[in-house]
Amino acid sequence: MPQKPSIPKGTRDFSPAEVARRNYIIQTIKKHFEVYGFQPIETPSFENSDTLMGKYGEEGDRLIFKILNSGDFISKVDDVTYSSKKSSSLLPKISEKALRYDLTVPFARYVVMHQNEIDFPFKRYQIQPVWRADRPQKGRFREFYQCDADVVGANSVLQEAELIQLYDAVFTDLKLVGSTIKLNNRKILSGIAEVIGAQHLLIDFTVALDKLDKIGEEGVRKEMLAKGISELAIEKAAPLFTMSGSSLEQLTQLKSLLGESEIGMQGVAELEEIITTVEAVGLKTANLQVDVTLARGLNYYTGAIFEVSAPEGVSMGSIGGGGRYDDLTGIFGLKDVSGIGISFGLDRIYLVLEALGLFPEHLDKSIDVLCINFGAKESLASLKLISQLRENGIKAEVYPTATKMQKQMKYANNRKVPYVILIGEQELANGEFVAKNMDTGEQETYSMDSIAAFTEKL
Amino acid sequence: MPQKPSIPKGTRDFSPAEVARRNYIIQTIKKHFEVYGFQPIETPSFENSDTLMGKYGEEGDRLIFKILNSGDFISKVDDVTYSSKKSSSLLPKISEKALRYDLTVPFARYVVMHQNEIDFPFKRYQIQPVWRADRPQKGRFREFYQCDADVVGANSVLQEAELIQLYDAVFTDLKLVGSTIKLNNRKILSGIAEVIGAQHLLIDFTVALDKLDKIGEEGVRKEMLAKGISELAIEKAAPLFTMSGSSLEQLTQLKSLLGESEIGMQGVAELEEIITTVEAVGLKTANLQVDVTLARGLNYYTGAIFEVSAPEGVSMGSIGGGGRYDDLTGIFGLKDVSGIGISFGLDRIYLVLEALGLFPEHLDKSIDVLCINFGAKESLASLKLISQLRENGIKAEVYPTATKMQKQMKYANNRKVPYVILIGEQELANGEFVAKNMDTGEQETYSMDSIAAFTEKL
Repeated sequence: MPQKPSIPKGTRDFSPAEVARRNYIIQTIKKHFEVYGFQPIETPSFENSDTLMGKYGEEGDRLIFKILNSGDFISKVDDVTYSSKKSSSLLPKISEKALRYDLTVPFARYVVMHQNEIDFPFKRYQIQPVWRADRPQKGRFREFYQCDADVVGANSVLQEAELIQLYDAVFTDLKLVGSTIKLNNRKILSGIAEVIGAQHLLIDFTVALDKLDKIGEEGVRKEMLAKGISELAIEKAAPLFTMSGSSLEQLTQLKSLLGESEIGMQGVAELEEIITTVEAVGLKTANLQVDVTLARGLNYYTGAIFEVSAPEGVSMGSIGGGGRYDDLTGIFGLKDVSGIGISFGLDRIYLVLEALGLFPEHLDKSIDVLCINFGAKESLASLKLISQLRENGIKAEVYPTATKMQKQMKYANNRKVPYVILIGEQELANGEFVAKNMDTGEQETYSMDSIAAFTEKL
Repeated sequence: MPQKPSIPKGTRDFSPAEVARRNYIIQTIKKHFEVYGFQPIETPSFENSDTLMGKYGEEGDRLIFKILNSGDFISKVDDVTYSSKKSSSLLPKISEKALRYDLTVPFARYVVMHQNEIDFPFKRYQIQPVWRADRPQKGRFREFYQCDADVVGANSVLQEAELIQLYDAVFTDLKLVGSTIKLNNRKILSGIAEVIGAQHLLIDFTVALDKLDKIGEEGVRKEMLAKGISELAIEKAAPLFTMSGSSLEQLTQLKSLLGESEIGMQGVAELEEIITTVEAVGLKTANLQVDVTLARGLNYYTGAIFEVSAPEGVSMGSIGGGGRYDDLTGIFGLKDVSGIGISFGLDRIYLVLEALGLFPEHLDKSIDVLCINFGAKESLASLKLISQLRENGIKAEVYPTATKMQKQMKYANNRKVPYVILIGEQELANGEFVAKNMDTGEQETYSMDSIAAFTEKL
């Protein structure tokens, strides 16, 4: 019995139409990455386990896919370990490599290993798949692409401004008008914790605050209380729950709240510089908005925090995010290299463009010309003709076999071919070919010797 | 102590210059795949183990990277199996997924799973990494890209002719003049084994014959004898050892040798049709040559066999190969689908282009314009200027910090920037910018309001 084939859960096959659409997004992102001066790197799909393990917290470690050692892997396990029959003890003995979990840690590893050949500040982009043993669900996969751009070795807020512009440029090019780039700063969050006297509960405080739009002010207050933040502290933080107005107005409110916190005021000053710079240069279609509740990846970011949401009316989580981190390469021994990066969520952007009907029509056209096959002599003439077409960059093929005309035309329809070329016995004798416009049904006859008249139509 | 980072043996980091060169090759291949009517698909990096295991022989099974089950993997192993402490018994209990070993088996799996949505004949291409736990050595890696184009569901030799043209088109475009496309047919090899009375030793016979250019006629005769092929049989096959002349001349010799073998004559007839078709259409820079010693992947191919070698003078194994296979999808339950495919060896093509100095110079240019940073006000003006440049597709950046001019110019040199833009205090006051040609040292002043005068220079 032959196997009935399947693929692992959480993974996907991409058919031609999907690849075309995914590539459209990727190429757009890539184009702007390059126009902004970022250079591509690629790192291996798997890393040594000790490069990855311990970098993403306990949950992350669990979700990393481990690769079994090759050959007689079990013979290298000593008897004591083996007799324990514990996965955690066996793991390091039978697996030394793991699939990359994100592009950031491999990038940090890359920077440290290649530090002597890199011209800092180093602006790199990387568009590669990552793997996570997460429970698959709608929009969450075990294999997915990340599209990251990072600058390391430069700590001016020019970078923040440029990355906001970059988001705007990409989403504008994708015709995704009205995305919102939310902006916060870790230093503001630290400052708030400081002025309300809850530094020791910074994480709990920001995790609760981050849920404001989901659970509302009452919910946030309850969660903070439950985490041990005092009523007095929460009351001091109350202005945050109702912050509104333009970004600069919000900054004014923050200044009065954070006046006594040096780090908080530093965060406000940074945001102010970023916002005035971005406003001076101007955004095309995106909205830039301060959001003090934004906390994503707090342990990781040390300055600016970004998150992009799709235009209103599309229900979708964030379609991009990022921020500044001050010591990413430190874990691999290279200290004091400030970095800032942003990421685009390919799968979610795909779903948004699909929902809004924003994929260009031309992506559906996989071929320009199909030659109908009428037999050996005719198809040889077709082959000569399409060789010329192909040299002009026209996507063309001869139907491989001289089957029924009807079947060949059905194939042409299914592949949405704009032009079908017919070279039958008579055309062959006359040195001509007939081109049929599949939209209008119109047919025109051309000489084999001058294809230019036809290619102009395409 | 921070970790000293490393990457697994047999894997590679690709730095910007390498990515640019690899992408140049990949984009060239891709362009021609598309112009020839092939459509892209992508399959997951890992497959269910039973999709891959048993498809590549025992050696192949050993070289497949297996992925450890997530979570408490060992708890699912029964005590009897566990107490055996045998890798082969444990493997299926602790691993259900494996990294893909090539693109062909996943493609066959794809065709079977998606057969109802595919318009046959299906011309697909696929450019993705594969992984093999091979011993790494010069030019052999544990992670490498395959670039495959296959047609399934069409058995006319038009396909063979087109794929030969496709090789020619790609290598011509890469300026790799003088590659040789070697052509054989499994049926000819079967025919020879038949007429010399060694059908039962077909594999041994062809494996030995395949070594003719390495070990010479004497060596081949010795190996055949050792494998149990009779002196008489070898004597009958002797004309093969000295076959020469044009492809059509060789076919004439084969006809006299194979006259009594139906399958052999069928193979000759197929080759003849392929060669006359290709000659009628013409090749641009490649040589097409019959090579009856060519046997690669014999178990797999049932008709035409291709192999491409680099131009003479470059010592490198094959840079491409492929052939026709008649029942690839049968293993997954879809019978009678004939297929033919070719593959491009990215890593070897890279080495050949490098050895011959054929990479275009423009690949080294990662950026068009760098703006020197003279401080906050000046860099804001720079940012506005390069926003306009970027909108015109020009790769541009502002140096992130206002450090010493010398350091910024060094960075510009290292990144091989053709133009550096200077906006100092005075230029800012005048609404001007200075562009310095880094090749000639020439400087010109332009008005900020009309960048066209400058962009024309680029």
